[in-house]
Amino acid sequence: MELYEQFQSMIKKRKAYQYVLNVVGWDSNTEAPDEAFKRRAEMLGIINQELFQMQTSEAYKDVVNGLYKQIDDLEDLQAREVKKAKKALDKIVKIPEDEFIEYGKLIQLSQKKWEHAKENNDWDGFKDNLAKIVDFNRRFVDYYEFDMLPYDVLLDDYEEGWTMKDFDEFFDVLRAELVPFVKEVLDSGKSLHKDFIDMSYDTDKQKEFCTYLMDVFSFDQSRGVMKESVHPFTWNTHPSDVRFTTRYLENYVFSSIFAAIHEIGHATYEQQIDETWNDTLLNGGTSMGIHESQSRFYENIIGRSKAFWETHLTSLKSHFPEQLKDVSVQSFYEAINKVEASYIRVEADELTYPLHIMLRYEIEKQLFAREIEVDDLPEIWNKKMEEYLGITPKDDSEGVLQDVHWSAGLLGYFPTYALGSAYAAQFYYKMAEELDIDELIKQDKIDVINQWFKEKIHQYGSSKSPKELLEAVTGEEFNPMYYVRFLKEKYSDLYL
Amino acid sequence: MELYEQFQSMIKKRKAYQYVLNVVGWDSNTEAPDEAFKRRAEMLGIINQELFQMQTSEAYKDVVNGLYKQIDDLEDLQAREVKKAKKALDKIVKIPEDEFIEYGKLIQLSQKKWEHAKENNDWDGFKDNLAKIVDFNRRFVDYYEFDMLPYDVLLDDYEEGWTMKDFDEFFDVLRAELVPFVKEVLDSGKSLHKDFIDMSYDTDKQKEFCTYLMDVFSFDQSRGVMKESVHPFTWNTHPSDVRFTTRYLENYVFSSIFAAIHEIGHATYEQQIDETWNDTLLNGGTSMGIHESQSRFYENIIGRSKAFWETHLTSLKSHFPEQLKDVSVQSFYEAINKVEASYIRVEADELTYPLHIMLRYEIEKQLFAREIEVDDLPEIWNKKMEEYLGITPKDDSEGVLQDVHWSAGLLGYFPTYALGSAYAAQFYYKMAEELDIDELIKQDKIDVINQWFKEKIHQYGSSKSPKELLEAVTGEEFNPMYYVRFLKEKYSDLYL
Repeated sequence: MELYEQFQSMIKKRKAYQYVLNVVGWDSNTEAPDEAFKRRAEMLGIINQELFQMQTSEAYKDVVNGLYKQIDDLEDLQAREVKKAKKALDKIVKIPEDEFIEYGKLIQLSQKKWEHAKENNDWDGFKDNLAKIVDFNRRFVDYYEFDMLPYDVLLDDYEEGWTMKDFDEFFDVLRAELVPFVKEVLDSGKSLHKDFIDMSYDTDKQKEFCTYLMDVFSFDQSRGVMKESVHPFTWNTHPSDVRFTTRYLENYVFSSIFAAIHEIGHATYEQQIDETWNDTLLNGGTSMGIHESQSRFYENIIGRSKAFWETHLTSLKSHFPEQLKDVSVQSFYEAINKVEASYIRVEADELTYPLHIMLRYEIEKQLFAREIEVDDLPEIWNKKMEEYLGITPKDDSEGVLQDVHWSAGLLGYFPTYALGSAYAAQFYYKMAEELDIDELIKQDKIDVINQWFKEKIHQYGSSKSPKELLEAVTGEEFNPMYYVRFLKEKYSDLYL
Repeated sequence: MELYEQFQSMIKKRKAYQYVLNVVGWDSNTEAPDEAFKRRAEMLGIINQELFQMQTSEAYKDVVNGLYKQIDDLEDLQAREVKKAKKALDKIVKIPEDEFIEYGKLIQLSQKKWEHAKENNDWDGFKDNLAKIVDFNRRFVDYYEFDMLPYDVLLDDYEEGWTMKDFDEFFDVLRAELVPFVKEVLDSGKSLHKDFIDMSYDTDKQKEFCTYLMDVFSFDQSRGVMKESVHPFTWNTHPSDVRFTTRYLENYVFSSIFAAIHEIGHATYEQQIDETWNDTLLNGGTSMGIHESQSRFYENIIGRSKAFWETHLTSLKSHFPEQLKDVSVQSFYEAINKVEASYIRVEADELTYPLHIMLRYEIEKQLFAREIEVDDLPEIWNKKMEEYLGITPKDDSEGVLQDVHWSAGLLGYFPTYALGSAYAAQFYYKMAEELDIDELIKQDKIDVINQWFKEKIHQYGSSKSPKELLEAVTGEEFNPMYYVRFLKEKYSDLYL
């Protein structure tokens, strides 16, 4: 079929451009010297413009629209690809070019503004930028003329097929089940804090241990790289080149360990995707939520389990014999699962984490329902923190200003973080029917778990939607009670 | 002038493509995992093809040829740029496209063939590839129809304006002056070998010392990066992003130190080029020879001087107190300047090095005069080694197979290595008229030397040809006797 072949060749060319841009992006985030960026912005501007022209050219429009007209004649996977292309095309062509460019500039400026505002606790210095970002997004959604509520359009960008209706049901359960449970845990009067948490740990030794972790998780280093960056992240261009970073804080050894395991979760997903998707639009993980389910599974369900440290605490001790001399597995397990009402999302423990997300979801939802405006955010933020966690930020830097996402135009993204944990729990109980998970972890056989995920999830790339995938793997629709059950069992045992 | 503006905008676009390809290249050489390369080749193939089409498009041809017709009306620097573009264009369009592609494939294959042949001492397994490479180059030169001898065309690629006539004069001097002098040194019966040379040096400590060296040489780390790779090299895209590598061998500490200083020489050149050349064809160092003059100046004239170690041996000792406990500055100075008749060019000392180059120059010259064929190479190689250094390689791996260059199609490149050292010496004696070089080195004021080079050479990028530059800096034409004088003074003092 000639039209589809034209489509394929256009997509492949576009992928080459995205590929080189990706590699440059990795370099920007892990290595390029400070003064490299002015010239870099100029050069990438040219390449990005070429890419934009490709994505909006008449030739490309003709091919995509042509294929879309005969979509019923296409094979299922081709149809899925074409729908994806059509959706992206409809968005990009409906936004007036001048607004598109203006928005791009606004986002660039807003990053710096936000950084400055966060550092200086200066909400007033940032709120106008944020208001503009929200306005642009409200307008863009209108331009698309999709038959969906505005916030649903944004949600669908990050989690295909998920709407406010779905998320409301999810967060209603969390609100009802977790808010009182968290209160119970926090009021228990029990503390799992240990002195060794705050000790000093040589960063070179931390790096050695993280290298050991790559082996423990069977991370394939012939197809991947571990490096260091301020904000840990996973990067990939195709399954044979997947990289991740962690960070080494001398006074907080848990940071490097759990960031590494978290990113190994993301990276393992990408490494295990079938290479046949490389040239299609169905490559890469299928959604933010499913991706996060993997990173959280590896970090929390494996990495924060007692079974894991029964096997690997000895190795950690050999790197830090002084700090961990008399530490038992139980004591270590308690330390890494300490619960606290805290202000900063990225530092929150496994149990309180979803409440941080719920707060953000509710705010975004109200913003796009036009029930609130950006000016109202600090007050609402603080009220919700009090409601869910019983604490009030002392200033906006540890409140509404803490996250980079909104300044980058990422609206509708946050809820996938909590969703990922909930997916992970649902996968966990399914996997537990087939595998003795604790035993595999203890016996240093995490490759069996990798294999399970490869077969059930990873290999498919984004050829299945998150909903299709979840149902195919678990035989059920999404059910947040698995997540609630997992958290309640684990933390009742630790605290109550 | 409209046509020139069109030219500028085409060049800028091409630079953006080269920029991203460069960044990917750096990643390939320093970090990408083994399995990344298959997909990478495919993706870069697409980008390279786009670049090739740009460089051979009718629009580009029209602009360049149009400008070339009115070259007398252009400003000097614009004319220099247009001439450069015209020369490259004439080459690229005169080679039949199928041969161009075939040659590209041959070069890719030959790299692997060469690696294998070198590893297995298998000349027969490589010679046919080399013969094809030589044939292609002979044919390409014919296609160009320049009014020059074949080998002169190749020489001019790497050192603008330099022909066999010039190089013959140069090497005649070296042959007459250095061959007997080297013999005298080698026959002196004096050995400068020291036990501490072969000791074990922790590679992390070596890295710390190389980091210290960046400060000693005022290498601007906000506009540059030092990293590690098997073969040290310098990489740059523009003066605000210049990177270099060194390598850490536990049993040969000199390797990391002198590779770092050598590359800092290249890197300082690139960092000090004026940013105004960024968007023109006059960016970057002006020739391989001038570039090598800087790296060799920094490595040999500064780095292997006694003055340098009078100031910095203390710091090196603080990194390696055991190995260097009783080592005096004189003893260290002797060790780093030990002369030996050796087989491998890249391991050769400063004095015998140019003889290794002379041998290669003579062979290439005869190949392109069709006086010899590839089949003759091992025999000729070994005979010349005997003649110049009094030794015969035990096999081809330490003889004709040792260098990567020919397998990569780099023919005419080698002579610039020796030329660089000779330029460096000529610059040295000029600089010595204006600066007390030894005193500056001792007083840790190498930034003054950097500044001298910036003013006289670096800032100009490639807006001046090597010949123009040499004459502007030294007020003289090229004179190889400075080089001979430098080597004879230094090594007479050490050996005779």
